[in-house]
Amino acid sequence: MTENSDHTTATPVPIVISVDAMGGDQGPAAVVAGISLSAHKNPDIGFILHGQKEVLEPLVAKRRDLKGRCEIRHAPDVVSMEDKPANVLRNGRETSMWSALESVRNGEATVCVSCGNTGALMLLSVMRLRKLPGIYRPAIGVLWPSQNPQGFNIMLDGGADIRADAKDLMQYALMGVSYARNGFDLAHPRVGLLNVGTEEHKGRAELKEAYDLISANARLADFEFVGFVEGRDLPGTTCDVIVTDGFTGNVALKTGEGTAGLISDLLKEAFRYSPLSRLASLLALTSLRRLKKRIDPRRANGGVFLGLNGTVVKSHGSADAMGVSSAVKLAFQLAQTGFNEKLAARVASASMLEQDAATEDSSDGEKE
Amino acid sequence: MTENSDHTTATPVPIVISVDAMGGDQGPAAVVAGISLSAHKNPDIGFILHGQKEVLEPLVAKRRDLKGRCEIRHAPDVVSMEDKPANVLRNGRETSMWSALESVRNGEATVCVSCGNTGALMLLSVMRLRKLPGIYRPAIGVLWPSQNPQGFNIMLDGGADIRADAKDLMQYALMGVSYARNGFDLAHPRVGLLNVGTEEHKGRAELKEAYDLISANARLADFEFVGFVEGRDLPGTTCDVIVTDGFTGNVALKTGEGTAGLISDLLKEAFRYSPLSRLASLLALTSLRRLKKRIDPRRANGGVFLGLNGTVVKSHGSADAMGVSSAVKLAFQLAQTGFNEKLAARVASASMLEQDAATEDSSDGEKE
Repeated sequence: MTENSDHTTATPVPIVISVDAMGGDQGPAAVVAGISLSAHKNPDIGFILHGQKEVLEPLVAKRRDLKGRCEIRHAPDVVSMEDKPANVLRNGRETSMWSALESVRNGEATVCVSCGNTGALMLLSVMRLRKLPGIYRPAIGVLWPSQNPQGFNIMLDGGADIRADAKDLMQYALMGVSYARNGFDLAHPRVGLLNVGTEEHKGRAELKEAYDLISANARLADFEFVGFVEGRDLPGTTCDVIVTDGFTGNVALKTGEGTAGLISDLLKEAFRYSPLSRLASLLALTSLRRLKKRIDPRRANGGVFLGLNGTVVKSHGSADAMGVSSAVKLAFQLAQTGFNEKLAARVASASMLEQDAATEDSSDGEKE
Repeated sequence: MTENSDHTTATPVPIVISVDAMGGDQGPAAVVAGISLSAHKNPDIGFILHGQKEVLEPLVAKRRDLKGRCEIRHAPDVVSMEDKPANVLRNGRETSMWSALESVRNGEATVCVSCGNTGALMLLSVMRLRKLPGIYRPAIGVLWPSQNPQGFNIMLDGGADIRADAKDLMQYALMGVSYARNGFDLAHPRVGLLNVGTEEHKGRAELKEAYDLISANARLADFEFVGFVEGRDLPGTTCDVIVTDGFTGNVALKTGEGTAGLISDLLKEAFRYSPLSRLASLLALTSLRRLKKRIDPRRANGGVFLGLNGTVVKSHGSADAMGVSSAVKLAFQLAQTGFNEKLAARVASASMLEQDAATEDSSDGEKE
């Protein structure tokens, strides 16, 4: 598995991104439009595009920006949003998703981007790329719009695994710190552990244990541990990285999306109410656009699968060209900084520390 | 314990609400202003007000609406937001919070309203009012602004207990249904169980078990079970009552508050951006006020402690007069409909059904 990361570190410019062209709600045209947008903005990027050749060739041919920078890799099958992950693992060798991950596995590309079925992508990623040495559970790192200078906070796990014990949460902290450092150029990220109250005596037992483990790693891994944080800190400025289990993280993520959606709907209603309010909305249009841009989920598009031999960016299923392009931008940034190698190194040095501190109850870790 | 509920059912108009005047962030003046507002709007309401007599008497004397309708009960001590719940239980007999609950315990009032320390209020409520027969864990029912016709959804548990097993979740469903029926006049409330995906195969083991238990009770308790729902359904229209454990519920609640707060801040920034946008914001003022009214936390002010011998409404710590008045309105509505007796009857009939269906692993239930 190590020749993979050696190869990655040695990749010369351009950085190659492996893209699953199929499986998103908006179809391959949106994906091709998105990577074309990225290619236009960034000369140091190249693509391997996976999917049905007969569909992709005419789409790519139309885009001048992709000329000579996008190789098409034929894959006849498509993973649908309804497919069960286990079925895809058994029967999905001919799918564009499988093929896209294969390019990362064999070292042709550094990062894979897909808009497809999250569960299937996660399972295939874990089985095909394998976990990094020392990682117990991979996690999905997601971005929250916030008032922090970088504009976003990172929360993990966004839903890779519904369970997480204290050691998993400690590793999530390390992975989140690597992500913040490489994705947002934060030298000394601040990490919070999600709980129901900020007092140390509150919350579940595994959270108290995780609190101690994360504290113990803060100095070595060069981050600041702010302690327990609450749901309101997810879009807040208390910290840059918020650590939680995948069940809580997924509920929080969707609650945030739902709340933003409700407010957006109510705002539209409020402005449709009377002729005067419709006039006001015309005048307010640029202000409202400015707001929309800040919280536009397309700008924060890309859950990153962390803890694998290779980086996978899961774009929103309904991503349009701009959404795909955001995901590609994130993938490029992570590839360029050698993010995954640095993450692996962090985890390796923390494992040593953690072997002294923690109890030995891991059953599925460190197999490779 | 039963003479209490007999008394409650027989209470003639006016309905008496027991109010803890101290312990809120805005002090007793805001509480007195709030109950005065309620007294003005509603002739069928009376109050027992608990706190420092020398502080409360002049405040009440100034309010014409409270004349002859507000009895002051002296309590020299105040529970602060920083007090540990266990300490309050040991040493809090002289506090206004304790005294306010005592009026419900001895049958003088039907519902207690407090803006104070949530943890202390919950612990005192459980210990002084005791759980309803058959209830394993009391829960906090909270309101979410939503696009449903009633304007709000009910979520429980909002944070009374960080744990909840399948039987607890089933009882939360029953309590939430009673709340929706009596608080919002919904004849046939729709209930959803919060999970990370809507597919039946997903999520934690206790959620699958709870799914079956809630299903089994739907017909008898006359509600519709819509199955698993996601975080985005909390402010959505899929159901009226959302059931989850207090850890997840509390994180979701604060995430929703935080998201709404972020959007509100960004909206203000967007409108401050340029002279034109400031002009637009003036014209948009009524529209924005209309929006604010819909999502104003003061209108949805009041977590209700469910499953006790008596109803306790926990108003937001920072509630102003309008917030206190909303909490009193909710308390009145629940008292008037005989909510707690109906809830007790529902739980009793469900316990019989549930004894057939579920495994017997309850350790702390049904003590009384």
